[in-house]
Amino acid sequence: MTKPPIAFYFDFSSPYGYIAAHRIEALGVATGRRVDWHPILLGVVFKETGQSPLLTQKLRGPYHAHDLARTARRFGIPFRLPEGFPMATMAAARAFYWATDTAPDRAKALALALFDAAFAAGINITRAETVAEIAGRAGFDAGAVTAAIADPAIKERLKAETDAAIAKGVFGSPYFIVDGEPFWGHDRLADLQDWIQGGGW
Amino acid sequence: MTKPPIAFYFDFSSPYGYIAAHRIEALGVATGRRVDWHPILLGVVFKETGQSPLLTQKLRGPYHAHDLARTARRFGIPFRLPEGFPMATMAAARAFYWATDTAPDRAKALALALFDAAFAAGINITRAETVAEIAGRAGFDAGAVTAAIADPAIKERLKAETDAAIAKGVFGSPYFIVDGEPFWGHDRLADLQDWIQGGGW
Repeated sequence: MTKPPIAFYFDFSSPYGYIAAHRIEALGVATGRRVDWHPILLGVVFKETGQSPLLTQKLRGPYHAHDLARTARRFGIPFRLPEGFPMATMAAARAFYWATDTAPDRAKALALALFDAAFAAGINITRAETVAEIAGRAGFDAGAVTAAIADPAIKERLKAETDAAIAKGVFGSPYFIVDGEPFWGHDRLADLQDWIQGGGW
Repeated sequence: MTKPPIAFYFDFSSPYGYIAAHRIEALGVATGRRVDWHPILLGVVFKETGQSPLLTQKLRGPYHAHDLARTARRFGIPFRLPEGFPMATMAAARAFYWATDTAPDRAKALALALFDAAFAAGINITRAETVAEIAGRAGFDAGAVTAAIADPAIKERLKAETDAAIAKGVFGSPYFIVDGEPFWGHDRLADLQDWIQGGGW
């Protein structure tokens, strides 16, 4: 019997989500779990929790800017902040959900292309045109992506995914749930793996 | 030449600070660094950052209550929340700074006695009388502790320590600084050790 997947929640504007996106599939392979990717809108989550984007916070912001750079170096992942960060990411998230229906085996590749455009190349991926262009370069139909981003059904899908995440207690990015057990933060990946492999503490 | 110490910042009301207090000295031994303990008042820090006590926050609170229990289990440390948590901890912090002058080699033992009273026995350690009683059981002069908690010079010392911590960027508990490098959170202890032993990432 296949074991339940790891649910991976993130916002395309989350730098720790970007780093986690580059590491989570290896963890899935190591633990024998499929990873289901769920982009959500942290802005909606923050309305619920009263939090604000991490890097804009006093004292916490400078610390995390420093920590992001050293963490990326540690894992050999290129890193910079996109122009105009933090950025709105509805278009990117909608494109991802479109891809999960249209080309499910390539949806994660699209997500990584979008993340890399933002946090490796420094491109602001807010605009639908930018997302479509990145998707086009990644081998997707740019016109279809542009249409999908404006599609009411896809908009509704993203809204439902975000609401479902909040209902499960997700309050940040990245956030992982496996076998009902929640782990918040890129810095908990080792704990997540240990939990799966050790059968709980 | 002796290597610079690890500065360990915490609030006696911080449950992750309590867990870290039980683990940081072993890390100091493993890395050949002395650990300097700095209790501070997170309430003052939160006025600066706009944050609030972790466990009272929406969505984040329930997650961390769950995470604290599993983390304590994982490391074999008894854990419960004190009555009336979160609690004010000026008296505990002042008693600690008094001990650093009066019995420096036993100040950390007093800190652990206070932490254990709170998070292992579940006692609210806000009141000066409670702190003095715990100190008395730990072998300190309870009357001297009561006097110290009301001593303007000790009050000033705690204020100065908290201000100095904020000036160094400390925004939470536990928070560690070694060789100018900051690490926030109990879940970064392994990173802190790796940083010291690996010479930086």
